Amino acid sequence: MRQGRYVIELENKPSIIGWSSVVGKTESEGPLGKCFDMVIEDERAGKQTWEEAESELHKTAVGLALDKTGLKANEIDGIFSGDLINQCTGSAFGITDYDIPYCGIYGACSTSVLTLITAAISVNSGAMRKAIASTSSHFCSAEKQFRYPLEYGGQRPPTAQRTVTGASAAIISAENEKNCPIITKVIYGRMKDLGVTDANNMGAALAPAAAQTIADFLNDTGTSPSDYDLILTGDLGQVGTELLYELLNKEYKIDISACHNDTGLMMYYLEEQDVHAGGSGCGCCGTVMCSKILNEIQRGEKKNTFVVATGALLSAISPFQGETIPGIAHGALITAP
Amino acid sequence: MRQGRYVIELENKPSIIGWSSVVGKTESEGPLGKCFDMVIEDERAGKQTWEEAESELHKTAVGLALDKTGLKANEIDGIFSGDLINQCTGSAFGITDYDIPYCGIYGACSTSVLTLITAAISVNSGAMRKAIASTSSHFCSAEKQFRYPLEYGGQRPPTAQRTVTGASAAIISAENEKNCPIITKVIYGRMKDLGVTDANNMGAALAPAAAQTIADFLNDTGTSPSDYDLILTGDLGQVGTELLYELLNKEYKIDISACHNDTGLMMYYLEEQDVHAGGSGCGCCGTVMCSKILNEIQRGEKKNTFVVATGALLSAISPFQGETIPGIAHGALITAP
Repeated sequence: MRQGRYVIELENKPSIIGWSSVVGKTESEGPLGKCFDMVIEDERAGKQTWEEAESELHKTAVGLALDKTGLKANEIDGIFSGDLINQCTGSAFGITDYDIPYCGIYGACSTSVLTLITAAISVNSGAMRKAIASTSSHFCSAEKQFRYPLEYGGQRPPTAQRTVTGASAAIISAENEKNCPIITKVIYGRMKDLGVTDANNMGAALAPAAAQTIADFLNDTGTSPSDYDLILTGDLGQVGTELLYELLNKEYKIDISACHNDTGLMMYYLEEQDVHAGGSGCGCCGTVMCSKILNEIQRGEKKNTFVVATGALLSAISPFQGETIPGIAHGALITAP
Repeated sequence: MRQGRYVIELENKPSIIGWSSVVGKTESEGPLGKCFDMVIEDERAGKQTWEEAESELHKTAVGLALDKTGLKANEIDGIFSGDLINQCTGSAFGITDYDIPYCGIYGACSTSVLTLITAAISVNSGAMRKAIASTSSHFCSAEKQFRYPLEYGGQRPPTAQRTVTGASAAIISAENEKNCPIITKVIYGRMKDLGVTDANNMGAALAPAAAQTIADFLNDTGTSPSDYDLILTGDLGQVGTELLYELLNKEYKIDISACHNDTGLMMYYLEEQDVHAGGSGCGCCGTVMCSKILNEIQRGEKKNTFVVATGALLSAISPFQGETIPGIAHGALITAP
């Protein structure tokens, strides 16, 4: 059901009946370290390559979510997954063995919410009874692909963010048996390109898209920031968060600072862990949402949380071909049971 | 609505109200040359890079589909797009200017049908009123990424297929005003990996997935090949088609040879055009479906067409890391108005 120009209302209230998060060592040492389900300290996860390690994290996250709900893979009608690595192999190779009908999704760092809302629409409509939304990222595979070989030891500028090593999965069901968080409304974002070309300044590329999606959502639903316990953006970090406040104030006359947080700021102790402007990557918003946030919503500590994950739609070669970096942001309103 | 284990029935009968196809010079010289809406002879499409050229094709295809229906971009609730290039930039940069809510999809060559069925579920459910499914591929950008630099002039083995330079778009609507083709049933495929590791033999990697999806669909719907005018696979080419028949016969006791065709075999004059085992790429199934096939369905010349697009979920580096190539195949039953 449509609400306004951009918002989709999920009238059958699909619920998130299980969720999981798996992170690497650095993430486990951050402020949220104890919230995650599992820590895999070896950055190769016992595999030979970082790409295989990412797939292993992805596989583990999906397995954990299934275990928590007691469901078997053959009870799931579809899995919506994606990641940052070329051709989405982090997810594809991770989930092959589950033998679940698979829809590959690409939204860069916004993939966490993009998979969630696409799966939720499918479940809400009855096309699927139970679906999984999963995502992953890995510091080493992403750094190697988008920036410099790790062995090169290139110095990272202060605006750079650290790609989170982590994977998450959420199981969405048409039946709300367990008093679980509900996906009430969703919004697909539009691309927004203000001409940023620096792949080491993701926050600046992403903030305009986040501002647009937040403004569209509030406008279409006729609500204001004070109607939400939390507006949670993904992966903006320090630079992007400051820019988001500025853009929302100037262009849309909206102030979200009283109820906003950003998963890129929540993941690490920024200074102590030397992670520059914060966290990023599909795994950043994915693991924070599928741990602390959904836990709090289930416990009733939060009633209305609007999660907006942002993605930078560049490739490893597009900046060298003179292309700018379009940003996109997708949102989901998750409410207490 | 579910039918059997894997099939989704779209009870509100979303229809395809407009479609378009744009191809390159080589494709225009094949047997279907006159079916396509537009030919862009310059392989750079007036741009500086092949990647930009692919985006230009993609943009043109979406624009043509809009023009044909008389719709404006702001009347579209969502666009589901994907391609083969790293980080799906072929589609993202192509559609930025339309400012339509965007869901990035990755299914390798199966993206043509994967976007179509994901958009169709959204429209069928009322989450969107009108949605676009679009895809593209480009011989030069794909060859450069997955095989050798074109300048190297590497000799291609007989099993190699030629990535189609082409883009297509289909507009799906909840209202069937114009007597248009209907998307009746859809199926998401499961990954199937028989251990093929040769990136120059896509047909062999893809055939097992196509066989599985066709068998699942026939089984769940309680139908047999003779119930269909056409079972159309995407991108199997000569090697894959032979293997498909063999697998279906041996493993599933199904013979589709009387009603089957493959877009990889339809696109080119195989010997005269020196394209080895046939066509491939998202643009292959996409442009054939969004020209000859949908035209014939609309004219009532075909009543029941089951389109199954196949995708090889490898990356440019996964074969070098010793990974095998998982295949996947997604299907849509398109029926006459």
